[in-house]
Amino acid sequence: MTWKQNETEIRQRIKEGQYDGPTTGLMNGFTQANLVILPQNLAYDFLLFCQRNPKPCPLLEVIDTGKYEPKETAPGKDLRTDLPRYYIYRDGVKSAEVTDINKYWTQDLVSFLLGCSFTFESFFLQRGVPVRHIEEGVNVPMYRTNIKCKDAGVFHGNMVVSMRPIPENKLTEAIQITSRFPAVHGAPIHIGSPEKIGIKDLDSPDFGNRVNVESGEIPVFWACGVTPQAVIMNYRPEFVITHAPGHMFITDKKDMDYFQL
Amino acid sequence: MTWKQNETEIRQRIKEGQYDGPTTGLMNGFTQANLVILPQNLAYDFLLFCQRNPKPCPLLEVIDTGKYEPKETAPGKDLRTDLPRYYIYRDGVKSAEVTDINKYWTQDLVSFLLGCSFTFESFFLQRGVPVRHIEEGVNVPMYRTNIKCKDAGVFHGNMVVSMRPIPENKLTEAIQITSRFPAVHGAPIHIGSPEKIGIKDLDSPDFGNRVNVESGEIPVFWACGVTPQAVIMNYRPEFVITHAPGHMFITDKKDMDYFQL
Repeated sequence: MTWKQNETEIRQRIKEGQYDGPTTGLMNGFTQANLVILPQNLAYDFLLFCQRNPKPCPLLEVIDTGKYEPKETAPGKDLRTDLPRYYIYRDGVKSAEVTDINKYWTQDLVSFLLGCSFTFESFFLQRGVPVRHIEEGVNVPMYRTNIKCKDAGVFHGNMVVSMRPIPENKLTEAIQITSRFPAVHGAPIHIGSPEKIGIKDLDSPDFGNRVNVESGEIPVFWACGVTPQAVIMNYRPEFVITHAPGHMFITDKKDMDYFQL
Repeated sequence: MTWKQNETEIRQRIKEGQYDGPTTGLMNGFTQANLVILPQNLAYDFLLFCQRNPKPCPLLEVIDTGKYEPKETAPGKDLRTDLPRYYIYRDGVKSAEVTDINKYWTQDLVSFLLGCSFTFESFFLQRGVPVRHIEEGVNVPMYRTNIKCKDAGVFHGNMVVSMRPIPENKLTEAIQITSRFPAVHGAPIHIGSPEKIGIKDLDSPDFGNRVNVESGEIPVFWACGVTPQAVIMNYRPEFVITHAPGHMFITDKKDMDYFQL
């Protein structure tokens, strides 16, 4: 048994900075989350942005101002150390990449945990819906679109989507499964022609990697958790911390906890 | 045709204060909403309270600070005049009951619209699930419980629930229907013994009216939109406006818009 099969050891290695790689495939069945940390003076606008745009910004938990323990989704854990890798942004520009954020912590910070599509992908695999970027061992392709999010205070911008090529005979299941997971982006926001939502070239994603779309497959687009980061960067706030892409927070919740019964 | 069959006339009469009665049975199929208006300095805590307690506090829309047009749920309407009756609270005590709130309006007010169980009751009727308080022509019975809501900032308190007696052979449908409406309180929070959730006497509701529970019927409890009002009053804020109970805001949305597909 390697350390990657041992939950306690995975968490310990991440906490101590011994493991600073991506979290894909770690602790299968546990829900992974996007992290955004903002100063209190931006928290209301951001919370409102999430309320108005639940598909790209599905809130799993908002932590009390100045606190770093996610009491709801991971009691006892510490958001300052328990992610493998963080990005620090100042004035909208990445200024550091670190494995813990203790030295950046202040009492006026508010942490937001948002759902991530890893959750529904595990159900795709269980039901035989292919997940191309996992098959190809790359990051999911993500694209900026012409779909406007609803504004909230200082935050505005367009939706970023992720794309998975789905065989025609699996399309119904892909829609059914994601419809049952509104807390992790939910049902697709577009099926088929990329140009209808302002995507010029499927082979040139704005984030992540291109994947093959095979004959008989349809590109299907889901709202993506990169949207809130893109929207925050539009505003160029003085200070923001996020997880590094793919280096998520592993909660104590199980993916099935977010199944909409 | 009376004016109660004419949507335009209903809205006009409410706006002009000519009709100041309850909205039950008016404009069937249109979604009715609870209204809470708070000063900006309490808006973050209240928004967070709703995020953490979506069953009692299902947000349909949060209006921009100082604005009174619900752009999302009722474009062109005016929350200062378009409800039949409002309560004004000062220091947690009701100080006035009015049919428009123009003279109370200030630029720092934030309006919250929350879902209401009228929405799922119309589907109960369509599927033959009895709604006792409608049959008896009274208000739904509501009870304070021992179920603690999750705290958020200055707001804390216990959940208020509504009760509907459901025949055993309709219980499955009642649960299925409300499970499909998470935006209007969703599935029951308790089925059966009232004492398990701190209710001493079903015949003495804390709000609304008692109804008959007949032989072969089970009391079923849903999170109730009175919860946020009770929680706000616990804190006794300097100033709050709400709709008068039963005198709801009629949105332009249809009940089916809130069906979780």
